[in-house]
Amino acid sequence: MSTAVASTAPAGCPLCDGLGGALVWQGRNARVIRAQEEGFPAFYRVVWTAHAAEFTDLSVAERAECMELVAAVERVLRDRLSPDKVNLAALGNMVAHLHWHVIARWRWDSHFPGSVWAAVQRPRDPAREAEVQAQLDATDRAIAAALDART
Amino acid sequence: MSTAVASTAPAGCPLCDGLGGALVWQGRNARVIRAQEEGFPAFYRVVWTAHAAEFTDLSVAERAECMELVAAVERVLRDRLSPDKVNLAALGNMVAHLHWHVIARWRWDSHFPGSVWAAVQRPRDPAREAEVQAQLDATDRAIAAALDART
Repeated sequence: MSTAVASTAPAGCPLCDGLGGALVWQGRNARVIRAQEEGFPAFYRVVWTAHAAEFTDLSVAERAECMELVAAVERVLRDRLSPDKVNLAALGNMVAHLHWHVIARWRWDSHFPGSVWAAVQRPRDPAREAEVQAQLDATDRAIAAALDART
Repeated sequence: MSTAVASTAPAGCPLCDGLGGALVWQGRNARVIRAQEEGFPAFYRVVWTAHAAEFTDLSVAERAECMELVAAVERVLRDRLSPDKVNLAALGNMVAHLHWHVIARWRWDSHFPGSVWAAVQRPRDPAREAEVQAQLDATDRAIAAALDART
């Protein structure tokens, strides 16, 4: 796999060259970052370390590891932030380096029930966003602790 | 799990009450359907049979099973249709019954590189859509065969 990965990793891949966001946890095969996406305060990403475009470029064991990291992040978001829904997605149309969006969603957010990529449904709610924002440092620490406990 | 599921399944859940699309494969714990989404001919969904809102409502073993079904569908789409990208997502904001979108994407499609839920980027290409459409019956059969081979 390493050889294939090295040969297919394009020059200038932003997730090979940089972290892609505020680092929450760094593991051997993946990292968790917190993204800065306007209107969605609790927007995390699980980024696979090796350059792989598609989920099925990973082995069965790697996929299981990857998705248990995604699940661990989701679990912490549910436990600490009580979102109305969690959204999971691996798209990669713009950055074809495997990364899983893990996004806490609320009925009051600007796009609910649409996806975060869809059309705006209502104005943002700065007060409620601030309530979530105030819990993010503790949430980050809980994610790191949950993932450390797995390894 | 069964009791919890039964007690949380809301009345009128469209994925409890119906298939949600053209049935491609039916397994014990999940099914694969082909959706009819305008402009995205190769749009499949892996629907978990039991009513569960979030990925982490499943056990570790169930999550692994679910994601290996998703991966098997992705693998067939890649092998038979050579898409430019595969998109995977479990959102559930509108229908909170766990279902994974598995969507073959092409650079020529109307929304690429945006998500299928995002703004239109260009007109649809009926000729290329028809080329994909012509391969879907065989793709459906290949998905069913791949999933039957797993069980």
